Amino acid sequence: MAKGNKYVYKFGGGKSDGKAQMKNLLGGKGANLAEMSTLGIPVPAGFTITAEMCTVYYKMNRKYPKELDVQIKTGIGHVEKVMGAKFGDDKNPLLVSVRSGARISMPGMMDTVLNLGLNDKTAVGLAKQSGNERFAWDAYRRFVQMYGDVVMGLKPQSKTDIDPFEEIMDEVKKEKGVKLDVELKTKDLKELVRRFKAVIKKRKGVAFPEEPWKQLWGAIEAVFGSWMGDRAIKYRQINKIPHEWGTAVNVQAMVYGNMGDDSGTGVAFTRNPATGERKFYGEYLINAQGEDVVAGTRTPQPINASTKSGKDQKTLEEVMPKPYKTLEAIYKKLEKHYKEMQDIEFTIQKGKLWMLQTRTGKRTAAATLKIACDMVVEKLIDEKTALLRIAPEQLDQLLHPMFDPKAKKEVIAKGLPASPGAATGQAVFHADEAEAWAKDGKKVILIRIETSPEDIGGMDAAQGILTARGGMTSHAAVVARGMGKCCVAGCGAINISYKNKQFEVGGTVIKEGDWISLDGSSGQVMKGQVPTIKPELSGDFGKIMGWADKYRTLQVRTNADTPKDSQVARDFGAEGIGLCRTEHMFFEGDRIKAVREMILADDRAGRKKALAKLLPMQKGDFIGIFEAMRGLPVTIRLLDPPLHEFVPHEEAQQKEMAEEMGVSLEKIKQKISSLHEFNPMLGHRGCRLGIIYPEITEMQARAIMEAACEVKGAQPEIMVPLISTVEELKNQTEIIRRVAQETLKQYKAKVEYLVGTMIEIPRAALTADKIAEVAEFFSFGTNDLTQMTMGLSRDDSGKFLPAYVEMGILKNDPFQVLDQTGVGQLVEMGVKRGRKTNKTLKVGICGEHGGDPSSVEFCHRVGLNYVSCSPYRVPIARLAAAQAALKG
Amino acid sequence: MAKGNKYVYKFGGGKSDGKAQMKNLLGGKGANLAEMSTLGIPVPAGFTITAEMCTVYYKMNRKYPKELDVQIKTGIGHVEKVMGAKFGDDKNPLLVSVRSGARISMPGMMDTVLNLGLNDKTAVGLAKQSGNERFAWDAYRRFVQMYGDVVMGLKPQSKTDIDPFEEIMDEVKKEKGVKLDVELKTKDLKELVRRFKAVIKKRKGVAFPEEPWKQLWGAIEAVFGSWMGDRAIKYRQINKIPHEWGTAVNVQAMVYGNMGDDSGTGVAFTRNPATGERKFYGEYLINAQGEDVVAGTRTPQPINASTKSGKDQKTLEEVMPKPYKTLEAIYKKLEKHYKEMQDIEFTIQKGKLWMLQTRTGKRTAAATLKIACDMVVEKLIDEKTALLRIAPEQLDQLLHPMFDPKAKKEVIAKGLPASPGAATGQAVFHADEAEAWAKDGKKVILIRIETSPEDIGGMDAAQGILTARGGMTSHAAVVARGMGKCCVAGCGAINISYKNKQFEVGGTVIKEGDWISLDGSSGQVMKGQVPTIKPELSGDFGKIMGWADKYRTLQVRTNADTPKDSQVARDFGAEGIGLCRTEHMFFEGDRIKAVREMILADDRAGRKKALAKLLPMQKGDFIGIFEAMRGLPVTIRLLDPPLHEFVPHEEAQQKEMAEEMGVSLEKIKQKISSLHEFNPMLGHRGCRLGIIYPEITEMQARAIMEAACEVKGAQPEIMVPLISTVEELKNQTEIIRRVAQETLKQYKAKVEYLVGTMIEIPRAALTADKIAEVAEFFSFGTNDLTQMTMGLSRDDSGKFLPAYVEMGILKNDPFQVLDQTGVGQLVEMGVKRGRKTNKTLKVGICGEHGGDPSSVEFCHRVGLNYVSCSPYRVPIARLAAAQAALKG
Repeated sequence: MAKGNKYVYKFGGGKSDGKAQMKNLLGGKGANLAEMSTLGIPVPAGFTITAEMCTVYYKMNRKYPKELDVQIKTGIGHVEKVMGAKFGDDKNPLLVSVRSGARISMPGMMDTVLNLGLNDKTAVGLAKQSGNERFAWDAYRRFVQMYGDVVMGLKPQSKTDIDPFEEIMDEVKKEKGVKLDVELKTKDLKELVRRFKAVIKKRKGVAFPEEPWKQLWGAIEAVFGSWMGDRAIKYRQINKIPHEWGTAVNVQAMVYGNMGDDSGTGVAFTRNPATGERKFYGEYLINAQGEDVVAGTRTPQPINASTKSGKDQKTLEEVMPKPYKTLEAIYKKLEKHYKEMQDIEFTIQKGKLWMLQTRTGKRTAAATLKIACDMVVEKLIDEKTALLRIAPEQLDQLLHPMFDPKAKKEVIAKGLPASPGAATGQAVFHADEAEAWAKDGKKVILIRIETSPEDIGGMDAAQGILTARGGMTSHAAVVARGMGKCCVAGCGAINISYKNKQFEVGGTVIKEGDWISLDGSSGQVMKGQVPTIKPELSGDFGKIMGWADKYRTLQVRTNADTPKDSQVARDFGAEGIGLCRTEHMFFEGDRIKAVREMILADDRAGRKKALAKLLPMQKGDFIGIFEAMRGLPVTIRLLDPPLHEFVPHEEAQQKEMAEEMGVSLEKIKQKISSLHEFNPMLGHRGCRLGIIYPEITEMQARAIMEAACEVKGAQPEIMVPLISTVEELKNQTEIIRRVAQETLKQYKAKVEYLVGTMIEIPRAALTADKIAEVAEFFSFGTNDLTQMTMGLSRDDSGKFLPAYVEMGILKNDPFQVLDQTGVGQLVEMGVKRGRKTNKTLKVGICGEHGGDPSSVEFCHRVGLNYVSCSPYRVPIARLAAAQAALKG
Repeated sequence: MAKGNKYVYKFGGGKSDGKAQMKNLLGGKGANLAEMSTLGIPVPAGFTITAEMCTVYYKMNRKYPKELDVQIKTGIGHVEKVMGAKFGDDKNPLLVSVRSGARISMPGMMDTVLNLGLNDKTAVGLAKQSGNERFAWDAYRRFVQMYGDVVMGLKPQSKTDIDPFEEIMDEVKKEKGVKLDVELKTKDLKELVRRFKAVIKKRKGVAFPEEPWKQLWGAIEAVFGSWMGDRAIKYRQINKIPHEWGTAVNVQAMVYGNMGDDSGTGVAFTRNPATGERKFYGEYLINAQGEDVVAGTRTPQPINASTKSGKDQKTLEEVMPKPYKTLEAIYKKLEKHYKEMQDIEFTIQKGKLWMLQTRTGKRTAAATLKIACDMVVEKLIDEKTALLRIAPEQLDQLLHPMFDPKAKKEVIAKGLPASPGAATGQAVFHADEAEAWAKDGKKVILIRIETSPEDIGGMDAAQGILTARGGMTSHAAVVARGMGKCCVAGCGAINISYKNKQFEVGGTVIKEGDWISLDGSSGQVMKGQVPTIKPELSGDFGKIMGWADKYRTLQVRTNADTPKDSQVARDFGAEGIGLCRTEHMFFEGDRIKAVREMILADDRAGRKKALAKLLPMQKGDFIGIFEAMRGLPVTIRLLDPPLHEFVPHEEAQQKEMAEEMGVSLEKIKQKISSLHEFNPMLGHRGCRLGIIYPEITEMQARAIMEAACEVKGAQPEIMVPLISTVEELKNQTEIIRRVAQETLKQYKAKVEYLVGTMIEIPRAALTADKIAEVAEFFSFGTNDLTQMTMGLSRDDSGKFLPAYVEMGILKNDPFQVLDQTGVGQLVEMGVKRGRKTNKTLKVGICGEHGGDPSSVEFCHRVGLNYVSCSPYRVPIARLAAAQAALKG
C-alpha cells in the first residue's frame, strides 16, 4: 500500500495523474490514456483503479480497503466535471465503460462492461439528450445484456446451450417479423430490456440493479474477478505472465460510434503489422460500437487507400475526411512520441474523434525487423534500441521452412494473410479437440468460424488457424500473430459445419482429419500437405544480425552431428560446434553391426577388432564435419549413452541379430539382460564406458585426430562426458593425449586441439576447481545437469511436470527454461571455481537451454564464453546474446 | 626432501636419532626400535631408511638421490661400532636383516631379507666366530634361498609349480636319505648353497652377488619395490591406506634364536589380545628364527603359565627363567611407557634377550573395551584417551548375533579361538574361490592348512576362517582379528585335501559347498548352520557407552520401520527414530491389495476408498512404533517409492492380481505399463506422489496424527520426501497441517509435532534457505543425495564402481563412506543456508552414512543435531560421535 494509498489515477481534460511509464501500476491501457491526455490528444475522461488494488483485493480475500470508496467518488466527480454530465442523473446522465487493463495486453481474456449508468430513468434522459430514442434504448438493452452476462453470470450452461439473451432476441425478432437487429424499433428494444431483466431475475434470483453506483461496484468486481478466471489464468500460463501482477480497472466516459452515419469506430496500426511497411493501416465500421470491430462479427472497411484490398470498399478517408485528417495527425504524433509502432483504437461520435487506446502494436517477426530497421534509418531510434525491441523468440518464425514455391498446390480458398508462416496439419473444428489431437502427437489446423478467448488452448496446440469471419485485427489474427503462429482469417468462402465437423468450399469438402495447408503470408488455403523449403532471409534480418554481432560478447555455436546440420548452422552464423554427439553416428547403416560386435565381444581383443571396423567410418564423419566448420572449433563428445541403447529389445530383432552375428539367441539375450539398468541415466555411460573400455576412447580419439590431420583448419575440441571426479578426467585425458601424440607423429602434422569435459553432474560443478586443473574447457550439459540437480527424469516427468507448471510449483518447464535459482547456482559455481584454478578455461553451454533467450542472458551474466544451440536457434541466440550485453 | 635430506636414522647402543612419535617418517617398526633403544632396552643396532625415501624413490622413477649412499655407509659404520663387527669382514662379519616398516603394520605384505652379508668367505668367518659351522652354513643357505626368492625373483611359476629351492632341498634330502632339514649335515648345507646359486644363475641368468654392499642395495630395492607389489596394493585398498605413505626400510644387526637350545624366539602381547585380560601372553619356539613363529609352520609353545593350554607344553618361564625375567621387566616398562597394550617380538641368542619390535597390539573388540576400561582403572589413561582408542567399527563384532547356546550343535573339531564371533557359511578351500562365491552372494568359510598374504582377498570375502596349522599369532589369526572376522586357527585334527576340495575329521567329511559353523570365541567347528541369538553385552561396553554419551554432542537416532527394530535400537541407546519408512508397511499381508486397489482406481474417489482401508492398518503400525519410542521423537517419512514397486511384473502374478481385483488382465497390464519409468529414481515418487495424489498424504498424515493422539508421549516428526523446490513443501505442509489440526480437534488432544523434509535432491541443498522457511527440520537423505550428486545409480554401479575403487578413481564406495569432497559440500551448504533463515531448524542425517564413523565425524563437524543409522550401528555412531567431539 505504497504511494499513500492512492488507488485511483485520473485522466482526461488535457491532464493526468499518471503517465506512460506507470504501466506496472496502471496497466498498459490506463498508462497510455493518461499519457495521451497529457499530450493534448482527445481522450474521454476517466480514471484508473491501480493493479496494486487488484493484489490487495485478493489478499483481503476479495474485499476492498475503506479509502477506495472515496477515491472512486472523487474519480467520478472528475469525469462528471470534464465531460459535463452527471452519473445517475435523469436528464444529463454520465455513462461509463469499465474495462480491464493489465501490464501486458491479454486480448479478450478479461471482462468489460459498457454503457454503465443506464437504468429506466437515465435511459429516458439519454434519449432526450441525444435526440435519438432508438439509440438510447439500444445502448440500454446492450448494457443489460452485457451486465447480465459479465457481472451477473447469466451465460449459456453448455456449449450446445443457446445464449439466453440471444434466445430472447430471436423470439422478439420472430414476433416482429424482422431478420436484423437494426430493424427492431424503439418499443421492441424496450421490450427486450424488460424481457432481459425478467430472465436475469428468474434464472439468477436477483434483480438487475437500477442504481448506477451499485452497477459500478459490480462491474469493478467483475473485472478484478476475471483476472482469476480460467481463461485468463490459462493465457498467463502460456505467455508466462505472473499471477501476482494483477489488472488495473479503467472507468471512462462512454463515447458512441453508433450514433448514426457520422459516427463510427475503428482500430489501426501506425505501420503495417504483417509486413512492417511504413503505411498507416486500419479498419473501421460505420455506426458501430468498438467491440464490433474486434469481435469480427461484421467485416470492417479499410481506413485508407493503402489498407484497401477490394474495389467496392469505402475508406474512412473518403467517408469522413475531417476526422480522418485529425486521426492522421494524432497517429503521427503518437509514433513520434513513443518512437514505436502503435496499435490504436478510436471512436467518432457525431463527427468528433475520440482516442480510446494506444499501445505498442503486435506484429509479425518480419514486420518487427523491418520496423526496427526503418526506425533506425528514420533516426527515431538507435541500433541498440532496435535490438532490444525484438523478442528473440520471434525470429523463429522467419527461420523455419516455407512452402516450396515450385510445389504443386491445390488452392481451395483465399482469406486474409493474418499471420505469416507455413502450416500443414489435419483439420479439426474445436479447440479442445485440437488440444487432444496435439497431445497425441498429431499436427492439426484449427478451423473456426471465428475464434474467441475460450479457444486459446487449441490455438496454441495447432500448427495454424483458419477462420471464416473477422479481419486482420480480429481475435484470431491478433492472438496468432502474438504466438508467431500461421493464421488465415476472414476466409468467407468456406462453409463450416461444426456439427458435421467439416467445411465445404467450391465443391471440395474437407472433413475432420483431412490434411490441409495454410500460407499465412498469402492467405492461401490448400488441400493436402504442401512441401516446404528453406526460407529466404530479408536484408533486415542480416542488418539486425550484424548489429547483434557488433554488440554481443557471448559467442554462439551450434549442436550438430552431421555436415549438413553444420552447414545450416554456419549459414545462420554459428561460430563453431559446441556439441557434436558421436553416438548418432553409431546407428547408421552397417555400423550398428560393428557396434554390436563390440558389445558382444568377451574380451578387450574382441572389442578392439570391432572398433577397428568403426574407426574409418567415424573418421569419415569427422572429416565431413571439420570441412563444413573449417577454421572454426568443433567440440566432439565421446561416446555417451549406455550400451544397451545399441541392442534390440524385441525378440524378433534379437533373433535377427543372432543370425547376423552368428551367435546363439541365448547369448544375445544374456548379454542384453546383463546390460539392463534400473536407472540408465545414472548408470554405465559417459566416461564410465571409456574408463572400463579404454579401447573405445582410443578409437574415438584416433578417428578425431586422424580426421583433423587430414582437414586443414580443423580445430577439434575433444570432450569427455559425465565427469564426476577429476580422477576420471585424468584417466581419459591421458589416453586421448597419448593417442593424439601418436597420430600427430604418424602424420607429421600440427593440430591445435583441446581436451575438456562436460559439466553435467552436480559433483563436477561442486569440484570444478579440481577438474579445471586438467580440463582445457568446460561445457555445461544443462539437460542432464537439470535432471540430476532437480532429481527429475525428463523422460518420466510427463506425469507430473505439466501439473507442476499449472499449479505454479514450477514457473517453467526446467528443460526449456534454465532453472536459474537451482541449476543456475551450479553453473555459476562451476564457472567461478573452474576459472579460479585455470585462468584460460573456455566455458560454454551445450544443453538445449543454449537457444532459450532468458537462459542465454543468464549465460552472459555468469561469464560463459559461448552458448551452443540447434542450428535454427542460432540467430535467436545471437540476438539474445546482444540484448544480454546491452542490458548488462 | 625436508630435514636437510636426512634419509637415514640410526638406533642402538642406548641412543637413537629417532623416536616413537616419528612413525610417519620411520614407520612403526623403526620408530619403536629407536624409542626402545633410547629407553635402554636391548635392541640390535641398526638404522632406518625413511618412508620419505620410498616416495622419492618412486618419484625419481626408481632411482635414489646421491646423498643416500653416504648416509647408508655411515649407518653401517654405526652398527659395526655398536655391535663390534664389520660388514663383509672375513673374520668377524656383521650380518644384517633388511625389513620393511610402514606407518601402519601390513603383516606379511612386504619383503624381508635376513642374514645379509654372508658369502663364501664371511660364512667361514661366521662359522669360526660362532663356533658352530653347521649354524653358519644353515644361515648362509637360508640367506641364498631368501635372497634368490625375494631380491632375485626366483619363485614358483604357478600355483602348482614347486618352489625351485624346495625342490633342491627335497633332492638333497633324498640323496642323503634323510627326512628332516635338521638332519642335514654341514657338507649337505654347503651342497645346498652351491646348488641354490647354480639354479639362480641358470634360471635368472645372473649370479648370486657375493659382495655384501651389492647384497644390501639389492635388498633395499626389493623392500621398496614390494610396497608396490600386488599383494601390498590390495591390502592397502582393503584397509584404506594411501599409496603415497610409502614404507621405511630397517637395516639391523642380526641376532639368532637358532644358535642352540639356549636360543629361541617369540612374540608376545602384554595383555590377552582375545579377551583383554591383564596377563602377559605369548608364544615362543626354541632354537628357531623369528619368522618361524609368525609363519605358523611349527606350533609354538606358551611363554608362561597363563598362556598355557596343554599339559605337555613347556613354557619359556620354565625353560629359560633368566631371559624370561628380563622379558617381563621389559614388557612392563614398555606398557607403562606407551600406556598401551604392546605386541612384542624378541630373540634370545645364547641366553641373551634382544627386543626386535614393539608396537600397539591388535586385539578383539571385547579385548579393546576391556583393556581401555582396565587402563582407566589403573590410571594409565583417562576416559577421553580410552574413548579415542576404540575404533568404532570394531564394536560391530560385539553387537551381532552369536550362536544360540541352546541350539543343538554338532561339534566336529576344536581349534584355537583366534578371533571371536559366530560365522556360518559354505566350505571353500581356495581364497580366489571364496572371492568368487562371495561375489555370487554366497556366504563362505575359507578353510586353509595355513593362510598366507596371498589369501587376503579371500579372507576378506569369507564369513570366517578355519586353519589347520598356526597359533594365536599366526597370519590367519592376526589378519582375522584385524578384520574383526571370526577365525579358528591351528585346528590340527582336520585333514585338508586341496585336491579333493574337502576336509575329513573323525570320520566326517566336509566337502566344498557343505555348510559349517565356526565359533571364534571357543574354537569350535560345527557341522551345518547353527542358529544365532542376540549377544550379551559386557559391563565394559556399558561403561564405554556411558563415557561416549558424556562427551558427545551429536544425538544418535535409528532407522527403524517396526516396533521390534525400534526396541532393539532403543536398547542400543537410540534417542529416537530418524527414519521410519512407511512403504514397507504397504506390503504386509492384505495391505498390498488395498494399495493395488488405490493404484488401479480411475479417480480420486476410488483412490480415497482404497486409502480408507489402509488408514487403520497404518495407524496400527504407528501406534506400535510410538509405544516403543515413547517420549522420543519419531521421524516418519511419507510414501516415497514409485507406484510400480507395488504391482507385480510377472504375467502369472498379474493374472492372479486381475482375478483378485475382479478386473481384466488387460487393464492390469495397461496400468502397469503406464507406470513404467525409464529412470524411476528420478521419476514419479516422493512428494510428487503426494502432490498429484493429495489423498495419499492426507491418509498418511491422518494415520500418524490419530496414532499420536492415542499414544501418550508420542512425538511425531512428519517428513516429506524428495523435495526439490520450496513450493512442493508448501503444498504438502498445507495438507499435513490441515489434517493434523482436524485430527487434534477431533481428539481434543495436544500433540507436539513437526513437519520437515528430506534433503536428498541437490537442488534442495542449494535452495535450503528457502526450504527452511517452511521446514521445521531437515534430514539429509545421503543415499539419494549421493546418487544424484554423483550421477551414480547405486543399483547399477556394480559394473564400474569396484573397478573405480581398485583404480583409485574413488577412494571409497561413496554409498558406504560419505563423499565429503562432493556430496559433503551440499550437506554443509544445506545446513548453513537452512539455519540462516530458520535459527531453530533441527538437522539430521538418515542415509546409511549415519552409521559410518568417518561420516559421523563429518556430521559433527558441520553441526548436525543428530545422525540416524540402523539399530546395530547405534553404539558405533555413539562412540564415533564422542570421538568427533573429543577431536574437535
